[in-house]
Amino acid sequence: MKKLKVSIIGATGYTGKELVKILMNHPKVELVYLTSSTYTGENIAEIFPEFRNKLDQALINLDLEVVSRDSDLVFTALPHTVSMEVVSELFKKGVKVVDLSADYRLKDSAVYKEWYKKEHNQISKELLNNAVYGLPEIYSDKIKVTSLVANPGCYPTSIILGIAPLLKYHLVKPEGIVIDSKSGTTGAGRKLSLGLHFSECNENFKAYKVIKHNHIPEIEQELSAIYFSESECRQERTEIKVCFTPHLLPINRGILSTCYLTLKESKEEGEILEVYQKFYQNTPFVRIFEPPDLPEIKFVSGTNYCDIGFSLDKRVNKIKVISVIDNLLKGAAGQAVQNMNIMSSFPETCGLKF
Amino acid sequence: MKKLKVSIIGATGYTGKELVKILMNHPKVELVYLTSSTYTGENIAEIFPEFRNKLDQALINLDLEVVSRDSDLVFTALPHTVSMEVVSELFKKGVKVVDLSADYRLKDSAVYKEWYKKEHNQISKELLNNAVYGLPEIYSDKIKVTSLVANPGCYPTSIILGIAPLLKYHLVKPEGIVIDSKSGTTGAGRKLSLGLHFSECNENFKAYKVIKHNHIPEIEQELSAIYFSESECRQERTEIKVCFTPHLLPINRGILSTCYLTLKESKEEGEILEVYQKFYQNTPFVRIFEPPDLPEIKFVSGTNYCDIGFSLDKRVNKIKVISVIDNLLKGAAGQAVQNMNIMSSFPETCGLKF
Amino acid sequence: MKKLKVSIIGATGYTGKELVKILMNHPKVELVYLTSSTYTGENIAEIFPEFRNKLDQALINLDLEVVSRDSDLVFTALPHTVSMEVVSELFKKGVKVVDLSADYRLKDSAVYKEWYKKEHNQISKELLNNAVYGLPEIYSDKIKVTSLVANPGCYPTSIILGIAPLLKYHLVKPEGIVIDSKSGTTGAGRKLSLGLHFSECNENFKAYKVIKHNHIPEIEQELSAIYFSESECRQERTEIKVCFTPHLLPINRGILSTCYLTLKESKEEGEILEVYQKFYQNTPFVRIFEPPDLPEIKFVSGTNYCDIGFSLDKRVNKIKVISVIDNLLKGAAGQAVQNMNIMSSFPETCGLKF
Amino acid sequence: MKKLKVSIIGATGYTGKELVKILMNHPKVELVYLTSSTYTGENIAEIFPEFRNKLDQALINLDLEVVSRDSDLVFTALPHTVSMEVVSELFKKGVKVVDLSADYRLKDSAVYKEWYKKEHNQISKELLNNAVYGLPEIYSDKIKVTSLVANPGCYPTSIILGIAPLLKYHLVKPEGIVIDSKSGTTGAGRKLSLGLHFSECNENFKAYKVIKHNHIPEIEQELSAIYFSESECRQERTEIKVCFTPHLLPINRGILSTCYLTLKESKEEGEILEVYQKFYQNTPFVRIFEPPDLPEIKFVSGTNYCDIGFSLDKRVNKIKVISVIDNLLKGAAGQAVQNMNIMSSFPETCGLKF
Repeated sequence: MKKLKVSIIGATGYTGKELVKILMNHPKVELVYLTSSTYTGENIAEIFPEFRNKLDQALINLDLEVVSRDSDLVFTALPHTVSMEVVSELFKKGVKVVDLSADYRLKDSAVYKEWYKKEHNQISKELLNNAVYGLPEIYSDKIKVTSLVANPGCYPTSIILGIAPLLKYHLVKPEGIVIDSKSGTTGAGRKLSLGLHFSECNENFKAYKVIKHNHIPEIEQELSAIYFSESECRQERTEIKVCFTPHLLPINRGILSTCYLTLKESKEEGEILEVYQKFYQNTPFVRIFEPPDLPEIKFVSGTNYCDIGFSLDKRVNKIKVISVIDNLLKGAAGQAVQNMNIMSSFPETCGLKF
Repeated sequence: MKKLKVSIIGATGYTGKELVKILMNHPKVELVYLTSSTYTGENIAEIFPEFRNKLDQALINLDLEVVSRDSDLVFTALPHTVSMEVVSELFKKGVKVVDLSADYRLKDSAVYKEWYKKEHNQISKELLNNAVYGLPEIYSDKIKVTSLVANPGCYPTSIILGIAPLLKYHLVKPEGIVIDSKSGTTGAGRKLSLGLHFSECNENFKAYKVIKHNHIPEIEQELSAIYFSESECRQERTEIKVCFTPHLLPINRGILSTCYLTLKESKEEGEILEVYQKFYQNTPFVRIFEPPDLPEIKFVSGTNYCDIGFSLDKRVNKIKVISVIDNLLKGAAGQAVQNMNIMSSFPETCGLKF
Repeated sequence: MKKLKVSIIGATGYTGKELVKILMNHPKVELVYLTSSTYTGENIAEIFPEFRNKLDQALINLDLEVVSRDSDLVFTALPHTVSMEVVSELFKKGVKVVDLSADYRLKDSAVYKEWYKKEHNQISKELLNNAVYGLPEIYSDKIKVTSLVANPGCYPTSIILGIAPLLKYHLVKPEGIVIDSKSGTTGAGRKLSLGLHFSECNENFKAYKVIKHNHIPEIEQELSAIYFSESECRQERTEIKVCFTPHLLPINRGILSTCYLTLKESKEEGEILEVYQKFYQNTPFVRIFEPPDLPEIKFVSGTNYCDIGFSLDKRVNKIKVISVIDNLLKGAAGQAVQNMNIMSSFPETCGLKF
Repeated sequence: MKKLKVSIIGATGYTGKELVKILMNHPKVELVYLTSSTYTGENIAEIFPEFRNKLDQALINLDLEVVSRDSDLVFTALPHTVSMEVVSELFKKGVKVVDLSADYRLKDSAVYKEWYKKEHNQISKELLNNAVYGLPEIYSDKIKVTSLVANPGCYPTSIILGIAPLLKYHLVKPEGIVIDSKSGTTGAGRKLSLGLHFSECNENFKAYKVIKHNHIPEIEQELSAIYFSESECRQERTEIKVCFTPHLLPINRGILSTCYLTLKESKEEGEILEVYQKFYQNTPFVRIFEPPDLPEIKFVSGTNYCDIGFSLDKRVNKIKVISVIDNLLKGAAGQAVQNMNIMSSFPETCGLKF
């Protein structure tokens, strides 16, 4: 069988490295190019000795002509605002793209500008209409037929999957949603900063970007789309607003989001469980926990699963949802490959059973 | 000057050990007895080699006659429900007591029974009227003149101090309060359990006791007392209900509580900052952070401080308060000594400047 | 193709769990029985939620009749001294066995008795002659044809692989070997003990079993067999004696052994590198690092590799060898499966490429 | 009583910060100036929020005139090679100095040049004769009367204290000494590097600077001085050579050194214990553990102690010594203050009982 020719642009960040790890063992993929501006010319096994004896491949500088000529599909693992034009170039050349940046996630370029302080150029702005938000559990039909997937952020993945069923079936009020998320340090990337220095981060815990984390518009866009019917939604985009606080955990991998929502009317655990199980019945990477069991980060660490549990706090008429993912897998590279699988008509779990 | 004769009942748990550490260096205290049922007869420096060359004292079995005869003040660091009778015995014998269990924290013995599954006997029930909730920043006047202090729980300390000013001045609604707390592992004590085994706990993060953590009634009692005037309060005890979730951090020490409250009316950061600064102006162990600065666990680790910061989330009309303490110090042993200082007319910070 | 029917006795310790993880994805294996005395009757996915949606299998009580009847090969992951008779029973019934305990590692039952304080019965003692020490990089020929593999200990694996080439070619003196090893906590197993309690182990580091770690005779037996020709060896068993100190690292997985040996005569790095490369030329799981590069634990964490590097300290005429493995994989379950592969004529790396 | 006026040059590295912490609570010290080239003009409580409400002091740029005019004693916590001239300037101006760099530790400027790649200028070279190696347990007599203390390195402190008695009384051979040390990350300082990034360092362990760590000449100079009588020593300086390997532990603080030495003749534990106890009988900061007890890093973390234990490995005629310190305290700032105490005729433990 002919394999899918795949390249990775930005292969030496934590997400890029994780993509390499998955794709080098993917039975239906041939890794063509790995690009890195920092380590051009070096072998990936020199940068990451983990790859010794496993992968012997030089890191090249990005040449869009060459990459697009020789690749069927490209993963772009570049910083926000940098990815925008690389993606539009690749798209123009007819290559399928899974973009791991935020640049094509928001439907409304004005919202993007507000949160990311950069404007889409005309081509990118038009491309927004082609981009599909790559959350396979919700948009697999659209992912199947698109050439451009905007791979979701790590926090949004854990949160949207965690509470989508409650919003879809209007079991909870769309107001007053509080989300308290905690992420491991790889979520902050490989770039050096004092706050991520071992001696500073170890034995510590803190909230950060307490008001303006740029995953907020993405969360709100998607929750609104789930809650409101399409017609409602078109008129007034992000009616749902969330109160979101990210925190930094002194562990390498994993996100746990604790979501607090208000029930519209009293429900029993069994009813809610059923809603969740039905919503996710055909999704291989979501596991629902039956109360009182709740997921922990270690259950999903190193996997592409999103584990979800909940608890009814009847005293205050709230439902608490706990959702965990591995931020580098279901929160980034794993989900990106899941999207590739769907775009390429491979089995959804192909290469992702670790 | 004659020193205060102090004994510790239950000296070999994490809290008891921390009390020993503080009191052995306290300039106005003479350590009389350290009791331990597990390690009776051994020297504390054998159990905790940290004490070698510093403290040479045998652990004795608890003898209430002897302890009360030779002590001016006793710290009881026993498990909940076990402490109850030891405290009432000591009180009867005229010794001052700082009780670190929950047994005398709740004014209403029916509430205690509901959450702790044990009933106060007649003597203990009456003693509830004498017990003062030992949060010095709020009750120092009462602490000064009592013989029995019920030392607050670790989560309640971080939460009540964190949001008391907002409730006192009715800046926020008393409904819909959400509190998401994260604690280091010493908070769970020294008793072995699989969930606290290093290999299980390390690189992990989880919520626990998601609905029924028994610190809830204590939090609600105190928040209600702060919010409602005394007359209101008497009639209907715990009008304020909180939605509280504790989580287990893979670090040794520290609690960070993220509190979400709804503003009654729009406020500027400066106004709120002023309220906090005024509320805590004469308290040596609370430090208020000016936005956008926020406290982190490491700022208070190994100290008796409670650091508090906040952030206005105007998009959703919420205020987020971040409050951090060292769970073994301000959350337990440090606060207990702070209470002892006040009860004994010592300077409030005496022996607590580490 | 007919799959190999495999059972695991003792499936719920850390090693047993790791075996399950590997074998459930092994393309040539059918998992038949998982036994557990602690969790009989429960589903493995209840004990380890990581297995949800992946493996749905009940844990049974050990019934040697049933297990041997329905299995081609059995892994015994039982405590030392407990494994002995289970293995001999299985062997008698004609089942192939990979024993992860120490009970069949030492050729000399008197040495076993000295270090493990238990005597082999007559049958077990005879079985010692059939047992092959399961270090595939050295004994693959014997492993191919045996029915009983004694899977090496974790420390011995890292140490023997690390220095075998130096001893084999007599580049170093057989006296004065010093080995300083450091292991993650999973090496100590899942059984609760205060020293492995998170709050005790975290932010700590210590040596343990400083004189009498029972991996010593195994290390000495194998190093002697490598150094001395077979005839020499038969006469006087463990001529090589090592000075070995294990330490406990506050991480979950991994062993790093620092081995100090004295060069017989001055050598250049290039010569020594060549010796290593030649010695390990056909072994898929050993990676040699060229000086001055040295392996780190994270390079092998989650893999079946043993990474080896060295450094010449000419000032003192010593060679330092650094050898790292994942204690649960190359140090236990991974190597056990590698042995199974060889015993079954499967490709050596089958199911082990993670 | 008039307090000693003290300044710290380089107050915002980990060592400088630790000096500030100790000295701000030291009863006989008045902190005059804190200098920082990176944070000139800022308040130390802005850089380290731990200091809020405790210390309100601006960081100034270094002005040698002003600092020397207003200070009785100065701590220099500058990088190696940078400290050299600052120290000689201060010395010239008649200020006492405790230098925490390596620049005045080595008696022989040629050895310094070999390991630090910089030459002393004439003044500094002469100053070497005035400098006293600041290990109070060994050189307190000289420290008392000097104006310049070269504060020992962290590894050397743990190692020299660990094995000095064995060498002093010639219980061990001076050849073949192997030292395997493990240090927490603060030992590597506050400067950013990928190897100290949390995600890289956490759950990892590695050796580093395996051959040429520049603490080696310091260790060898001091061990030789202890082993050989003064006359022997003068002729041939560093006869003792050690095989030393440092490793990086994923913890914040602490060093554990495992030292392997060969006994000259067989000894019993009791004899050796006596030698240690006698050697350290009047030293307040060394604690000797009786076999089989051994020290762990957590016993000394946050203290100025050096804990030492040993174990006889009679099978191989070796003695293993385990020595632990807190690298920032006994390994740097704590020892520096201990030296200041001795230089100033304060009690040796003044301000160091934490």
